[in-house]
Amino acid sequence: MAPAAENDGYSLNGAVDASTKVVVVGAGPSGLMLACNLVRFGIDVIILDDRPDKTSAGKADGIQPKTIETFKQMRLAESLLRNAARVYDISFWQSTPEVPLNRTGRQIHYPDHLVGASDPYILLAHQGMVEDLFLDDMSSRGAFVTRNSRFISCSRVAGTKMLHVTYEDTLSKTFKTIQTEYLVGCDGARSKVREFIPNAQLIGEMTNASWGVLDGVIDTDFPDLWSKVAVRSHVAGSILWIPRERNLTRLYVQLSETDGERVDRLKATPEYVMQRARDAMYPFQLEWKTIEWFGNYVVGQRVANHFMDSDARIFIAGDAGHCHSALAAQGANTSMHDSLNLAWKLNAVIRGISKSSLLATYEEERQKIAYDLINFDAEHCKAFAAGDAALAKNFDDNIRFISGVGAEYSEGMLNRNKHSIPNRLQPGALQLPAKVTRYIDANPVDIQLDIPMLGQFRMFFFAPDALAALPFLRFVCDGFYNGTLMGRITSQASQSYQKQPRREAPSDAFANHSRYTAVSDVFTLSLVTKSPKFQFEIADLPKLLQDSRWTLYLDDADTPHCTDKWFGTLQNTQTGIVIVRPDGYVGAINAWDLSASNEARRWVEEYFVFMV
Amino acid sequence: MAPAAENDGYSLNGAVDASTKVVVVGAGPSGLMLACNLVRFGIDVIILDDRPDKTSAGKADGIQPKTIETFKQMRLAESLLRNAARVYDISFWQSTPEVPLNRTGRQIHYPDHLVGASDPYILLAHQGMVEDLFLDDMSSRGAFVTRNSRFISCSRVAGTKMLHVTYEDTLSKTFKTIQTEYLVGCDGARSKVREFIPNAQLIGEMTNASWGVLDGVIDTDFPDLWSKVAVRSHVAGSILWIPRERNLTRLYVQLSETDGERVDRLKATPEYVMQRARDAMYPFQLEWKTIEWFGNYVVGQRVANHFMDSDARIFIAGDAGHCHSALAAQGANTSMHDSLNLAWKLNAVIRGISKSSLLATYEEERQKIAYDLINFDAEHCKAFAAGDAALAKNFDDNIRFISGVGAEYSEGMLNRNKHSIPNRLQPGALQLPAKVTRYIDANPVDIQLDIPMLGQFRMFFFAPDALAALPFLRFVCDGFYNGTLMGRITSQASQSYQKQPRREAPSDAFANHSRYTAVSDVFTLSLVTKSPKFQFEIADLPKLLQDSRWTLYLDDADTPHCTDKWFGTLQNTQTGIVIVRPDGYVGAINAWDLSASNEARRWVEEYFVFMV
Ligand SMILES: Cc1cc2nc3c(=O)[nH]c(=O)nc-3n(C[C@H](O)[C@H](O)[C@H](O)COP(=O)(O)OP(=O)(O)OC[C@H]3O[C@@H](n4cnc5c(N)ncnc54)[C@H](O)[C@@H]3O)c2cc1C
Ligand SMILES: Cc1cc2nc3c(=O)[nH]c(=O)nc-3n(C[C@H](O)[C@H](O)[C@H](O)COP(=O)(O)OP(=O)(O)OC[C@H]3O[C@@H](n4cnc5c(N)ncnc54)[C@H](O)[C@@H]3O)c2cc1C
Repeated sequence: MAPAAENDGYSLNGAVDASTKVVVVGAGPSGLMLACNLVRFGIDVIILDDRPDKTSAGKADGIQPKTIETFKQMRLAESLLRNAARVYDISFWQSTPEVPLNRTGRQIHYPDHLVGASDPYILLAHQGMVEDLFLDDMSSRGAFVTRNSRFISCSRVAGTKMLHVTYEDTLSKTFKTIQTEYLVGCDGARSKVREFIPNAQLIGEMTNASWGVLDGVIDTDFPDLWSKVAVRSHVAGSILWIPRERNLTRLYVQLSETDGERVDRLKATPEYVMQRARDAMYPFQLEWKTIEWFGNYVVGQRVANHFMDSDARIFIAGDAGHCHSALAAQGANTSMHDSLNLAWKLNAVIRGISKSSLLATYEEERQKIAYDLINFDAEHCKAFAAGDAALAKNFDDNIRFISGVGAEYSEGMLNRNKHSIPNRLQPGALQLPAKVTRYIDANPVDIQLDIPMLGQFRMFFFAPDALAALPFLRFVCDGFYNGTLMGRITSQASQSYQKQPRREAPSDAFANHSRYTAVSDVFTLSLVTKSPKFQFEIADLPKLLQDSRWTLYLDDADTPHCTDKWFGTLQNTQTGIVIVRPDGYVGAINAWDLSASNEARRWVEEYFVFMV
Repeated sequence: MAPAAENDGYSLNGAVDASTKVVVVGAGPSGLMLACNLVRFGIDVIILDDRPDKTSAGKADGIQPKTIETFKQMRLAESLLRNAARVYDISFWQSTPEVPLNRTGRQIHYPDHLVGASDPYILLAHQGMVEDLFLDDMSSRGAFVTRNSRFISCSRVAGTKMLHVTYEDTLSKTFKTIQTEYLVGCDGARSKVREFIPNAQLIGEMTNASWGVLDGVIDTDFPDLWSKVAVRSHVAGSILWIPRERNLTRLYVQLSETDGERVDRLKATPEYVMQRARDAMYPFQLEWKTIEWFGNYVVGQRVANHFMDSDARIFIAGDAGHCHSALAAQGANTSMHDSLNLAWKLNAVIRGISKSSLLATYEEERQKIAYDLINFDAEHCKAFAAGDAALAKNFDDNIRFISGVGAEYSEGMLNRNKHSIPNRLQPGALQLPAKVTRYIDANPVDIQLDIPMLGQFRMFFFAPDALAALPFLRFVCDGFYNGTLMGRITSQASQSYQKQPRREAPSDAFANHSRYTAVSDVFTLSLVTKSPKFQFEIADLPKLLQDSRWTLYLDDADTPHCTDKWFGTLQNTQTGIVIVRPDGYVGAINAWDLSASNEARRWVEEYFVFMV
């Protein structure tokens, strides 16, 4: 079959080779994060990638604290935590015409008081190891990437909201067509899918700054080989050292400055880059025992004008939507958070649990982050060139953002009533890590990690005095029964998940997911209390919270207490509620006097009006 | 081939089907711990087991804190930590003729002030999941269990120290013979290998106490389903509740008391046990949704008279050497620590790095623990029957021992100079968990876990003031060069490991073992200092400590500091040395003034005289 005409926009309603709910183009970090989540949620998906195989070396290598948290929430982090290198500190070196290369400073990379991440380090491993997390998980659920398959075009099926996606099987050189409801382009900076979203071109500038990137095992007498190191040499530009798995080190070697002349691509050979690195590192010895990967790139900071079409049928995510330098290890991280944001929304809309207007929040939220990113990146590149003081300040100012912990969405449908109350969770921002004790089995757990990511909203009740709050809790919980809005959402979801269940892996036998879906497929309810365990039994709670016994937490595991971290102050005469979105972002937070259960229930209902 | 005559003790030097260094009989917890370690060390081993397949359900299910530490040290713990249930607390229930069943208390299972384990919980999973850790690791190194193979007999090869081991291939019903240097019986309570160690019979008493054990998914309104629970009913004896993986619960149901009448085996059906449990739990509902495993056993406390023969060629380990009740979840744990103790000793002797007198310490050390265990177990069973107060006291008195953290070896060749200095590591006991910072990459690590288990001794230098200690360190390190005793040990080892390297798995590519064998295959040197990082460079240290840069630790990660936890007090004008054995037990500890490097070096050499 020949490719459909790209430009007329409509194809005949002809024969198709396959049909699905979502086609994901690209099996890089963003495409795999999306596909893996959709597969877990139980959504039909076809993943096309033009490469014959997964990444075997090089490319993105830095996983940031927020992404580590996400991997933990997805129960995917283990092998990476075991095998990757960890960067906890950064040291600064400099040479000037007067003073030979010397260490000018050393600092903690993610200081607790600025970042507060529970994994305050960068995890370093080649991109294929990250891709493997997803590929292995998907294959344990019977889902695989269709490789050697190049996306060619997409057209609407006349009179429907369906799309026909055409791709080329590059082995057999034949063209195939998939009928699908949604198409997501995770196909990198030169995205082809982007061309099918009207007016979505990349906006922004390319610079002349170019860098060579070399992964290898290094032999050197340079003492800071196993820290992240920023070197500024007066003779040979900047170098960034990154420790890596298997004794590897990555060097980013500056080939030309932002405003300088562009370096001829042909000149940027490994040998050239190695020699430049040796020059910069003088008087230290610098040799390579092995070289595993070499790349080079020119820095540009650009963001796509649109991340989706106006019908909310075609999307782009990841590098397809934004590009920038690699220095701060942001690209793959941001790309995965793009598609994590999209995944649960697609699930909710495809299942008919949410109105499709939910999908528009994808562009609102993620384009904002993309702009934040390139603005930061432009400053970061300049600071890198300007020297240690500037770079250190740029780090301090942006370190929360770099870690991923600081990425924040604007106020909107999903992020209600941003506030200026100090020391309180902020809608549009992440949960703050906190330790609590599970009531039922006395296990200490991290509240932000304990509940598995099943596409559900979490409704945390914070009742410092559990017994005093019982009437309040009972009244608000009654708002989740049939007949109410939340009851309708739950029963719609339950029908949908019955027809099309989540896709299980053998390992799920140990994950006990039913503990979290006992009350609803859409909501996990949770009670967090400062009352001591001996003061109440599970049987004292309203029925829905009894059924949520695995998410009943005692706030006694750590100081500051979770309640205080999340609410600042919350009186014994109050109950607080936090709505956490399926992607772990805070949706809304408020507190009421125990007499105001009516208002609280209305507040909860108002949050969920965007749903069915 | 017919089985060799069992009793004449010598066989003809006839044809054999295979030859190896060590034959391990039994692929239960003790046999697999042994085999897995030997395989990793690079020692040829054949593992025979009469079962057709690995354990698929039931049997031992409680992994204690010390064993969790061991699994972490072996880098095997991950899947178990993910999939097993964790018990942190225990609650006590009781009924009397006057008062119906009620909770009489609840306590933390492994209180920090009594135990101090870094994983203060029991990990619960059926025995097959533990066996899998070893089986998977072994198979990744190309080693497998020879199944359907029943050990029959063993005889000496005349005029040599070789053994001929005969086993039956139970599928083909043929007999085969293996020539081997060592035979280890990990073949359980009814050990056949034990019969080939003169005078090694089990000594001790069987009681009449019998218990039924039932694994299943329970439906109940009993509120403490997910704690460990000790129930004493006045109508139906004792019950122990154990939460398990995959929503399972194990019940140990007492069928008769220690001094009571023995229950007929035929009577002890699952139905009988379930009804007895229901009676005991009245007025709570108790039903089973599924039953996965059922077993019953009669309690006896017995220890083998010998754990090895006088030539140190035939050994037993695990249940073959000791048996007792299952209530305190000790059997599999102790069994694995038996064979962990034996593994590195066999490695050292087989490689010619150590004199064979080392092997005698196996019996000395592990038989002592076996006696400690059955003494505790007899008390524990009595306390269980005597009621909550007695049981709580028995727990408090023995909780360190139960956790495995409290198992201690007597003074001997490997455990020198037990002392009575308070707050100081004790030879024959374990390292105390402590957090330190790796100098080279600023990673916070647990000192007791950071160095992989490669069959090496660890030599920790504690120099509160690193620069002041340099001359001392230099002098003692010089004692590790060629010509010295330690130098000879190292060069012997290096020849041996060159000929017969450790057996690597693909995953070892990420483990960077060469960082720990840089100085010697037998010794990992390590420096722990309170000096701040900026005060010295790695290049300032003696050459051997430079080469040990991955085990250079800053004692700044936690309070109390590691130095203070391990030494109590150690002045800036002193250096302390801790020798840690390959199995993680402390071998010797001492401290010297910085002027006494001569004495320190002699002290180190004296420790290692048992080696080549
Ligand atoms: C040298 C270097 C170092 C970097 N280091 C880091 C780092 O440390 N941390 C970090 O976060 N980021 C880093 N990045 C950025 C990171 O690699 C990208 O941001 C990330 O890979 C983007 O992921 P993606 O899934 O959006 O796109 P890609 O990874 O580019 O994946 C796109 C996929 O789509 C496929 N594809 C493209 N077109 C088609 C088509 N028409 N049909 C079918 N398939 C198609 C491609 O083959 C590819 O598999 C680095 C980048 C470079 C170059
Ligand atoms: C109901 C129950 C619950 C328990 N719970 C716990 C617990 O929670 N925690 C705990 O630590 N312990 C527990 N135990 C004890 C634990 O099961 C044993 O201590 C442990 O299995 C001993 O390990 P082992 O390797 O020495 O022997 P085994 O596990 O008995 O393994 C011996 C192996 O040798 C094989 N074998 C035997 N004879 C031959 C032969 N002639 N030739 C070849 N192969 C042979 C057997 O088939 C078997 O595979 C429990 C025991 C029972 C019965």
